Amino acid sequence: AIIVYRLPWTWKCSKLLMKFIHAGLNTIAMILAIVSMVAVFEFHNASNIPNMYSLHSWIGLTAVIFYSLQLFLGFAVFLLPFAPVPLREALMPIHVYSGLTIFATVIATALMGITEKLIFSLKNPAYSTSPPEATFVNCLGLLLVIFGALILWMASRPHWKRPPEENAKLLRPIGGTPEGTEEESTVTDGSNTDKSDLRINSETARKNLKLDEAGQRSTM
Amino acid sequence: AIIVYRLPWTWKCSKLLMKFIHAGLNTIAMILAIVSMVAVFEFHNASNIPNMYSLHSWIGLTAVIFYSLQLFLGFAVFLLPFAPVPLREALMPIHVYSGLTIFATVIATALMGITEKLIFSLKNPAYSTSPPEATFVNCLGLLLVIFGALILWMASRPHWKRPPEENAKLLRPIGGTPEGTEEESTVTDGSNTDKSDLRINSETARKNLKLDEAGQRSTM
Repeated sequence: AIIVYRLPWTWKCSKLLMKFIHAGLNTIAMILAIVSMVAVFEFHNASNIPNMYSLHSWIGLTAVIFYSLQLFLGFAVFLLPFAPVPLREALMPIHVYSGLTIFATVIATALMGITEKLIFSLKNPAYSTSPPEATFVNCLGLLLVIFGALILWMASRPHWKRPPEENAKLLRPIGGTPEGTEEESTVTDGSNTDKSDLRINSETARKNLKLDEAGQRSTM
Repeated sequence: AIIVYRLPWTWKCSKLLMKFIHAGLNTIAMILAIVSMVAVFEFHNASNIPNMYSLHSWIGLTAVIFYSLQLFLGFAVFLLPFAPVPLREALMPIHVYSGLTIFATVIATALMGITEKLIFSLKNPAYSTSPPEATFVNCLGLLLVIFGALILWMASRPHWKRPPEENAKLLRPIGGTPEGTEEESTVTDGSNTDKSDLRINSETARKNLKLDEAGQRSTM
């Protein structure tokens, strides 16, 4: 869901469609999170294991609460057509930051959960004797970290990399890159040269961009 | 060390001084990390506890290896005066990304370490009965997550927030914000208006900025 706006081959799709995919994937993830939390509580209650005592559970529950807030606010502000453009612009950096931070926190929670589970489940042979199961699950944990790092890399790249042609920029989802990459990239072309025709071109392009941006923002 | 370039009151200090502080703090952290790793291995050996079996240890060692690489490369490329400007420009986004990712990984490792330690140490009363010590250490873990989130917030803000006055921008460390925030912020002022005098002003400012940037890059 996080990298849905970062896939170049989707830049020709409408912004609204991409938003539905982003919101839809996150809604599915939220439903799965709730189902699994209910399962955990029922398993704990059935096995007479106390609930919510571990750091894993504290941080995990915090992450789920922030995730539901993020989902609700994202739906209300960015998907419903009522929020004004300045509010969307103000909230987008926070939305992006929260999303990435919640994602990183969820990975950390999963790693704590894996650690707990290995300690509790591996008794004979113990976790500390490195049985094959321990090595295997440790590798899974390492892959989880690599996965998280890759997603964060993909999500953070467009902030200073931009598509080469004007067309892709015009069609690129604008809500996903709120820091004004469009203006920057359009104008940087002109800033390295003194040719006034290029300057006028980039000027025109920028105005088109502004119009396009406003159009997309008002209809999305 | 991460937020050393993000403190507005340091923007009047020389770039080189700030780099020395950034490198110095990271070197101290690296020394402390090595000392604590030696302590862990000696404690394990003295207590007949196997080394490197847990996910905590795997991810922690990976983070320390990447951290030492980051420190070495950062020193060689950004502190020593030999690396050419294009190389610095190409490596800076990777340096920033690696630094933040290693930081997040270290927090995750600490959380796993806390989880392990609570499970192993709290036996009577057990961790699962939530004795005061468990609650206290869980709170520490939660604070660690909040600390990490705050640092990531501070480190990522300047990418789309920029200081209001031209002066602060000129004096701002440029190596820390490699994605061209300067051009963006200078030009966005002009892009929202049709007044050509403002345009010329921002044009001049941008050229000064370019010169200043090159000057800083070559001397740093």
